Amino acid sequence: MEDLLHRRYGGAPVPAGPRSDVVETILGHRSVRAYLPDPLPPGTLETLIAAASSASTSSNLQTWSVVAVEDPARRDRLSRLAANQAFIRQAPLFLVWIADLSRLERLGSAHGQPLEGLAFLELFMVALVDAALAAQNAVVAAESLGLGTVYVGAIRNKPAEVAAELALPPNAFAAFGMAVGCPDPAVATSVKPRLPQDVVLHREQYRAQTEPDHVAAYEAALTAFSEANGMGAEGWIGRVLKRVATPASLAGRDKMREVLATLGFGLR
Amino acid sequence: MEDLLHRRYGGAPVPAGPRSDVVETILGHRSVRAYLPDPLPPGTLETLIAAASSASTSSNLQTWSVVAVEDPARRDRLSRLAANQAFIRQAPLFLVWIADLSRLERLGSAHGQPLEGLAFLELFMVALVDAALAAQNAVVAAESLGLGTVYVGAIRNKPAEVAAELALPPNAFAAFGMAVGCPDPAVATSVKPRLPQDVVLHREQYRAQTEPDHVAAYEAALTAFSEANGMGAEGWIGRVLKRVATPASLAGRDKMREVLATLGFGLR
Repeated sequence: MEDLLHRRYGGAPVPAGPRSDVVETILGHRSVRAYLPDPLPPGTLETLIAAASSASTSSNLQTWSVVAVEDPARRDRLSRLAANQAFIRQAPLFLVWIADLSRLERLGSAHGQPLEGLAFLELFMVALVDAALAAQNAVVAAESLGLGTVYVGAIRNKPAEVAAELALPPNAFAAFGMAVGCPDPAVATSVKPRLPQDVVLHREQYRAQTEPDHVAAYEAALTAFSEANGMGAEGWIGRVLKRVATPASLAGRDKMREVLATLGFGLR
Repeated sequence: MEDLLHRRYGGAPVPAGPRSDVVETILGHRSVRAYLPDPLPPGTLETLIAAASSASTSSNLQTWSVVAVEDPARRDRLSRLAANQAFIRQAPLFLVWIADLSRLERLGSAHGQPLEGLAFLELFMVALVDAALAAQNAVVAAESLGLGTVYVGAIRNKPAEVAAELALPPNAFAAFGMAVGCPDPAVATSVKPRLPQDVVLHREQYRAQTEPDHVAAYEAALTAFSEANGMGAEGWIGRVLKRVATPASLAGRDKMREVLATLGFGLR
């Protein structure tokens, strides 16, 4: 576990706390972007969804769904809608996690009760968080089974086209995708360093006074990591500033509010 | 594992898939609302945050933070702001998970680069999902260490007051709270049944044709669960319809958009 902490924080010291096999599985996470074409063992999808269903959900509303895409032609089309990422075609399973208020809407209709609350931003946030908690459980479960995963935010580049491809009803939104498969052992993956705990963890109140020094140390650690992994010498700061510099940097997602409105979300 | 699946789905059949200790930890999740006052073992907080930091984060932007509140007086004040829930006072640690765009804003300022992208709804969504993925890793890690947790969405009832209490900068939002502690063994907790997999899991495309039958079965399972756990005979449908019936049902969160604007979020 000390080795994992060391790698996770790029060498910055972290006090050793209690450990478990589960903690080690979690600390060892790395995103996998190269997969073998092998099918998943029978029952894997059901186990991942049972893990997802076991996550907390706000007021037990369960405002999430998932579409499991295995058909190669559909994975190919989804890949084209999501920045043409090759691993969506490569991995045998592509999960699209849905922030889903449509189920409650159907329930209200069936019981003749209008549900005014669904039209508020709060409920969209609830659905997004529900979907994220469920998905993260599936990630941890998958990794414990020796599988690899990677989240695909680019599925939000073209939300209306994705909704059509998956036949989503109104009030259902493809929040993010996730490739699942057997990691290609020929392609190395590494534990990526994150910002030091002093930056993300605040005690009692939010304090950012020491942040610049810690960010400078992280910049050095991530630059070293990038070089060691053949990703060039660019560090963290340059990348993230570029990523959010302008509306155009958002790869179409600067239209999110308008698109969500066409998909039926009130966001009041 | 079969027993856990049985309880998670209220008796509805689920094919047995591959298992691991991690999967069993995840399937066994239950929210804990009664805690011993005992302090956490040394290093626990750091281990939970290392787990959180190990979650995926969109484009490595790391748009989340967490405020760890241990001071009893502050926990008491936060409890009052969050529907007066007693376990916030009871558990030794209360984590407030922050959707945090302020760090990138500071980074942009320090480098003289305006970050127009931060003002878009997409970035708020990224931050919310980043916070949720990190938090869920902390939950799974905590449970593997024998601790209990519960998410507290009611921290969103009064976002401006919570932001003031935690000294949050603009562009930082307390997305949800989380109590962490040793479960009080005198208060039983149970694995709560969730909607059948046929309802949340869609193959290739979204299909809701069989949903009403599955929801009816779930209504029966959840009613039985509620009765067995002394929560009255109300099932799922009545509860959730009430929860989102009107703006007033949202306990103040119908003002979320306006409040987020005052906290500095563009949400364009």
